[in-house]
Amino acid sequence: MSFWKGLFGAAETVSAKELTRTAKASHRQEAVAVKGESILFSLDPDLDLYELEELCDAVGWSRRPIHKVKKALHHSFLVVSMWQQRGNYRRLIGFARATSDHAFNATIWDVVVHPDFQGKGLGKVLMEKVIRELRAQDISNITLFADQGVVSFYERLGFTPDPEGIKGMFWYPR
Amino acid sequence: MSFWKGLFGAAETVSAKELTRTAKASHRQEAVAVKGESILFSLDPDLDLYELEELCDAVGWSRRPIHKVKKALHHSFLVVSMWQQRGNYRRLIGFARATSDHAFNATIWDVVVHPDFQGKGLGKVLMEKVIRELRAQDISNITLFADQGVVSFYERLGFTPDPEGIKGMFWYPR
Ligand SMILES: CC(C)(COP(=O)(O)OP(=O)(O)OC[C@H]1O[C@@H](n2cnc3c(N)ncnc32)[C@H](O)[C@@H]1OP(=O)(O)O)[C@@H](O)C(=O)NCCC(=O)NCCS
Ligand SMILES: CC(C)(COP(=O)(O)OP(=O)(O)OC[C@H]1O[C@@H](n2cnc3c(N)ncnc32)[C@H](O)[C@@H]1OP(=O)(O)O)[C@@H](O)C(=O)NCCC(=O)NCCS
Repeated sequence: MSFWKGLFGAAETVSAKELTRTAKASHRQEAVAVKGESILFSLDPDLDLYELEELCDAVGWSRRPIHKVKKALHHSFLVVSMWQQRGNYRRLIGFARATSDHAFNATIWDVVVHPDFQGKGLGKVLMEKVIRELRAQDISNITLFADQGVVSFYERLGFTPDPEGIKGMFWYPR
Repeated sequence: MSFWKGLFGAAETVSAKELTRTAKASHRQEAVAVKGESILFSLDPDLDLYELEELCDAVGWSRRPIHKVKKALHHSFLVVSMWQQRGNYRRLIGFARATSDHAFNATIWDVVVHPDFQGKGLGKVLMEKVIRELRAQDISNITLFADQGVVSFYERLGFTPDPEGIKGMFWYPR
């Protein structure tokens, strides 16, 4: 049983107390308060790219040129960042983004939760936020490419591998 | 052996005669002349959506609202249409598009060749065009979701299913 488990759904359906939407439309933030701990979600694609690099470093992802990351975020349909908030201190602890045609399809990339915060249900909360935002934009076909080790993480969230024999494929230069 | 087979690669590497790039930058067109038959490629996302619907109808795809198709094309990173040109008459015979973050990833959608023109190597020419355009934009991760029946079509083009166990996954509402 996880501390955060099911939190997000509950916050939405049960009590407005647990879910505080901040009014800063420019940053499009959403705060989830749980037992005094405050987790913040932001849809602002202009986040500190060095902080994002640190997060990706922490899970062992290879470095990518900052200017390309900036471009990728700018051209992503959805960018969700997850922050631990303590007083004025804010720490980036999770991230996910999606490309899309803004109409039918979205593909989710770069899902990550900082190792210090893994296994607490926060990856699930983050992904539920991503799915909810995409559905709110009327995207019906939500897709992703899952590393072998995380297939069942996504299955728990309602993702199916190879439905009707559809195969994810990657092109390699010859 | 196909009439068109290998044409595109040959046209690029062997002879400028076979490949005529028209100067209409606004429409970003490219013509491939083969034995008097002229096949035209366009990157213009503003194509006749009813003609596109007809093409998709011809392969049995379900209809989609025109306004959403328009939005999807507008927000696709790459839109490639393939036309048969005879004098002033032009017929849409193939189509493909890709979403992207403009930096790392692209995902190819809606690849189609009209049944009258299938099995002539044109699907391959179309896909090679798509790959070439994405590579020219410095996209390193070219992906797609292949229906079961066309996996080997894409394999011939250099796509690998489930590389290193990576799984394509789709989300379904619960
Ligand atoms: C994958 C990742 C985002 C999961 O985040 P997390 O916060 O640890 O996950 P949660 O605690 O929310 O887990 C939710 C559920 O998935 C399960 N789960 C989490 N990670 C899993 C994994 N790797 N494999 C299988 N199940 C997993 C949990 O047990 C939990 O199950 P429950 O609901 O039955 O209790 C995180 O481990 C991570 O960032 N990993 C490194 C980067 C990465 O691999 N990203 C994905 C690339 S495709
Ligand atoms: C799939 C499709 C785009 C292929 O176009 P095409 O013009 O018929 O394909 P080509 O003639 O260029 O074929 C190129 C090669 O792939 C092979 N091929 C073509 N279709 C194939 C299929 N369905 N399965 C396996 N191999 C196939 C050809 O035999 C040829 O092989 P070769 O190079 O060894 O001669 C076309 O059949 C189509 O539009 N189908 C309906 C829509 C569809 O299914 N789209 C894909 C959705 S994921």
